Amino acid sequence: MKIRINENFKLIGKNYLFTEIDARVRKFEELHPDKKLLRLGIGDVTLPLTRSVTDAMASAVAEMADASTFRGYAPAFGYDFLLQSIKRHYARFGVLIEASEIFVSDGAKSDAGNITELFGDNTALIPDPVYPVYLDSNILAGRRVEFLPATEENAFLPTHEGLSGEGYIIYLCSPNNPTGAVLDREALSEWVGFALKTGSLIIYDSAYEAYISDGSPHTVYEIPGARGCAIEICSLSKTAGFTGTRLSWTVVPSELIAGGISLREMWGRRQATKFNGVPYVVQRGAEAALSDRGRGECLALVRYYMENAAILTSVLRECGISFTGGTSSPYIWMKCPGGDDSWTFFDKLLDKAGIVGTPGSGFGKCGERCFRLTSFGSRETMSEAASRLIRFL
Amino acid sequence: MKIRINENFKLIGKNYLFTEIDARVRKFEELHPDKKLLRLGIGDVTLPLTRSVTDAMASAVAEMADASTFRGYAPAFGYDFLLQSIKRHYARFGVLIEASEIFVSDGAKSDAGNITELFGDNTALIPDPVYPVYLDSNILAGRRVEFLPATEENAFLPTHEGLSGEGYIIYLCSPNNPTGAVLDREALSEWVGFALKTGSLIIYDSAYEAYISDGSPHTVYEIPGARGCAIEICSLSKTAGFTGTRLSWTVVPSELIAGGISLREMWGRRQATKFNGVPYVVQRGAEAALSDRGRGECLALVRYYMENAAILTSVLRECGISFTGGTSSPYIWMKCPGGDDSWTFFDKLLDKAGIVGTPGSGFGKCGERCFRLTSFGSRETMSEAASRLIRFL
Repeated sequence: MKIRINENFKLIGKNYLFTEIDARVRKFEELHPDKKLLRLGIGDVTLPLTRSVTDAMASAVAEMADASTFRGYAPAFGYDFLLQSIKRHYARFGVLIEASEIFVSDGAKSDAGNITELFGDNTALIPDPVYPVYLDSNILAGRRVEFLPATEENAFLPTHEGLSGEGYIIYLCSPNNPTGAVLDREALSEWVGFALKTGSLIIYDSAYEAYISDGSPHTVYEIPGARGCAIEICSLSKTAGFTGTRLSWTVVPSELIAGGISLREMWGRRQATKFNGVPYVVQRGAEAALSDRGRGECLALVRYYMENAAILTSVLRECGISFTGGTSSPYIWMKCPGGDDSWTFFDKLLDKAGIVGTPGSGFGKCGERCFRLTSFGSRETMSEAASRLIRFL
Repeated sequence: MKIRINENFKLIGKNYLFTEIDARVRKFEELHPDKKLLRLGIGDVTLPLTRSVTDAMASAVAEMADASTFRGYAPAFGYDFLLQSIKRHYARFGVLIEASEIFVSDGAKSDAGNITELFGDNTALIPDPVYPVYLDSNILAGRRVEFLPATEENAFLPTHEGLSGEGYIIYLCSPNNPTGAVLDREALSEWVGFALKTGSLIIYDSAYEAYISDGSPHTVYEIPGARGCAIEICSLSKTAGFTGTRLSWTVVPSELIAGGISLREMWGRRQATKFNGVPYVVQRGAEAALSDRGRGECLALVRYYMENAAILTSVLRECGISFTGGTSSPYIWMKCPGGDDSWTFFDKLLDKAGIVGTPGSGFGKCGERCFRLTSFGSRETMSEAASRLIRFL
């Protein structure tokens, strides 16, 4: 064909990280059909949806079966019942967000990727290691990227040290994927101050907020001034087990104005043009997950996964392997033993222990010689993984 | 803030067409709370989901409530059970599509908008009038656009007459939204031939295929050569009443190669990076809708809406108003009586008859002095609309 393509596609890896992991695992399974694999790789939940959620979804399916209660197109940015639930959710943290500042969508991944469409020629500041979507979406859009190293030296919390520019797009995720590090009030205030001073915008990913147990902020808007410099993306995937049910939201405060346009209006225009809302059935499930009863059930799921994390971290401690995360985060970010590089350790761990993890290098250069384990499995999987790890390490 | 924005946002209307209609209707309702409005505007279905679909969705909700059957992240491009159903759906029309060429998503609007990300500096050929998403997404991406007029003169079927360039991105929608015109085998073959000759790519929107009753192709791939020049986007929104349930798919044949890259691989990379799959519950519903029993139920919905269309078109004929569509399409594209412009007629019809339609000018310059009515309402709404139209016209 004679059409011109977006050449930036040639600049990103051929496969999304987890697609590559899938391929290696499938190959291993074909060669060893008898071996039972323990999956501590992709950050996917395993506990079922909670009772409140499935009750609400079942009722909504029944409504969709009846002409008098059937729902067609949802309002473009979410049903008001859900916007109000999200508003009340922020009130839990003493934060006031207007319903008109909330945009419901099908996933934090979609929003984190699509948000780049609002911007022009800016420099994106992206932590390294990082959730691949922030980086790949900026490369596809042809943006300049500067990395913010997150290493043992800075306790895996990137800083703005040495940055002298203005108007950055800054990606922050706390509790962090993949390192599990958490920005406390002081560290997050530091970033908000920097963004306000330099006229920059923070894209704040709070998908793991429910895992916070150390008093750190659950939302960037707990920090004074954040409404003037931050967009927040949050999701029910890891909180309510919605990875296969799909619901997230993005908050764009009305204070955010750039180039004479309100970013809230721009994002609304983008979503109204290229998105058509979240299934009614899913929105009812989300409303239930965000209710007080639902939140209680979700926090029970979180506790279960954090007990899993404790099982894994005690093994790592026992084996003298240094790591971060595993408290206030379902992720454990460990150093590969024996100085192995990430993919070598991935292959060894798969081959010798039948455990699938995620190579740190898949998240960026600073992730080389690191490895991510997730605590989302069943208790049985975690106990078995603990025994295998002790033998292997 | 000092960030630079995507200035192209200033080039599109402030509001998505239907957001603007909503605003006018809301204002009218506030002023006349007693008047019963008949909504023949936005193309939204009104009949409930069919029995096969809601049964399947209810079972899937139950599966999500149980740890042993719970599903987390779906495969990035759709569950194999659904890919196989879609493959069988194409077989209905004698067309072979591989599962690896099908990408399930949350809506034709999303895919039609996001597909522009794959392309570089090409000229987009966009029919006028047109579904606004094709145009707005190209403007936001800063693309050159040439319009293909669809007027009474060419029976609302745009042609490639007078085009001498190469490597176009061509948008076709049949049965057409908004005009209701249908590309028959000859007209579609003509376009495929042009695309092959000029190395162009057709983006074919077949969202209304189930409404075809005149033997015209249901899929572009019924035309020899189309695999070498066409991507097809299809949806269950209008076929199975999925506007509030959300499921569509995009077919990217493996033959499509541009700039040395497979478009199939590019779209896969785009979706894996910025999308995280469709809810499991919805995919089970879609599987049911595409089964033989489900398809039968869907065609009954289609027949109901087409009987509605017949009620409206008989009124227009009676009143001597010229129109297209209403056969093989749920849309009726009428000339505004008395030479009114579209928004004037919109306001008159709302004010005098309490009927909400869609101003043709919202779909493009050639839509000026035209008006779209949809037949998606209940029989009661249509009969009432018919009486009011006769009085008003």
